[in-house]
Amino acid sequence: MRYLDDIKVGDRYELGSHTFQTDDIKAFARRYDPQRFHLDEGEAERSPFGALCASGWHTASVWMRLMVDYRKRMADDMRRRGEPVATTGPAPGFRDLKWLKPVYVGDTIAYATEVTEVRPSASRPAWGLLSTRGIGVNQRGEMVISVDSTIFVERRPEAA
Amino acid sequence: MRYLDDIKVGDRYELGSHTFQTDDIKAFARRYDPQRFHLDEGEAERSPFGALCASGWHTASVWMRLMVDYRKRMADDMRRRGEPVATTGPAPGFRDLKWLKPVYVGDTIAYATEVTEVRPSASRPAWGLLSTRGIGVNQRGEMVISVDSTIFVERRPEAA
Repeated sequence: MRYLDDIKVGDRYELGSHTFQTDDIKAFARRYDPQRFHLDEGEAERSPFGALCASGWHTASVWMRLMVDYRKRMADDMRRRGEPVATTGPAPGFRDLKWLKPVYVGDTIAYATEVTEVRPSASRPAWGLLSTRGIGVNQRGEMVISVDSTIFVERRPEAA
Repeated sequence: MRYLDDIKVGDRYELGSHTFQTDDIKAFARRYDPQRFHLDEGEAERSPFGALCASGWHTASVWMRLMVDYRKRMADDMRRRGEPVATTGPAPGFRDLKWLKPVYVGDTIAYATEVTEVRPSASRPAWGLLSTRGIGVNQRGEMVISVDSTIFVERRPEAA
């Protein structure tokens, strides 16, 4: 992660994309969300979704995976260039986790994270608060997921 | 699910409990949240968490699983008693997903859902809005997760 002082509102990170396949959708659903429209094609056709679709928790978990991978790649690149890597606090949670459209078998979701707020911490001068919105967009350009979070990010040593 | 008219604020459903084991924590993390404190005991000891702990998405997904199982058991019991089962809409998302304490290896989390608001729908008279808070409490009585949601639930035919 960059230092808070090197991040600005509107920065956008393209995290990569993921295609949801039948086996993956069913495996996640069997374990964590065994509702009929995530498990069985026939039942899904008769449900309001009209076809087999992924659990919203699955769609969110894939975002998390791509986010973690992205951060690792970014940190590795920075270390290779000899740049210092800022420490971040763990996410204490998320606000407004929205599943806006179903994710069907074969849908490819492009995930990104956008910076929505950057704020020095009043109580902890060496840190600041970084607010982001994670989003996922399908191959038809429709946003399928949106999730807001805020984490602590280290400030540049000279700024803190 | 009961009809909206048969649900009141303060109703509480005990969903059951789950003990988080090392293998499960690592399997979820490898797939969806490969951060060092979810994957490796040594790295976790050196992290702010101090020991291996479950991904927050894992803790949330287990809540979903127990919730789905609970609803199925409730619907089966109602059908056995000859009671009509109300239809619900899918969850469009969640507000305020909070991970309040880490979930460590061997922790047993008791999950519950509490009714926080019951409201007829102005636009859809046959339906109402049910707001709930899902919570998880560990064996030391500490709340580890809290997640708020609102779904549509059918009203009693004679009330609609």
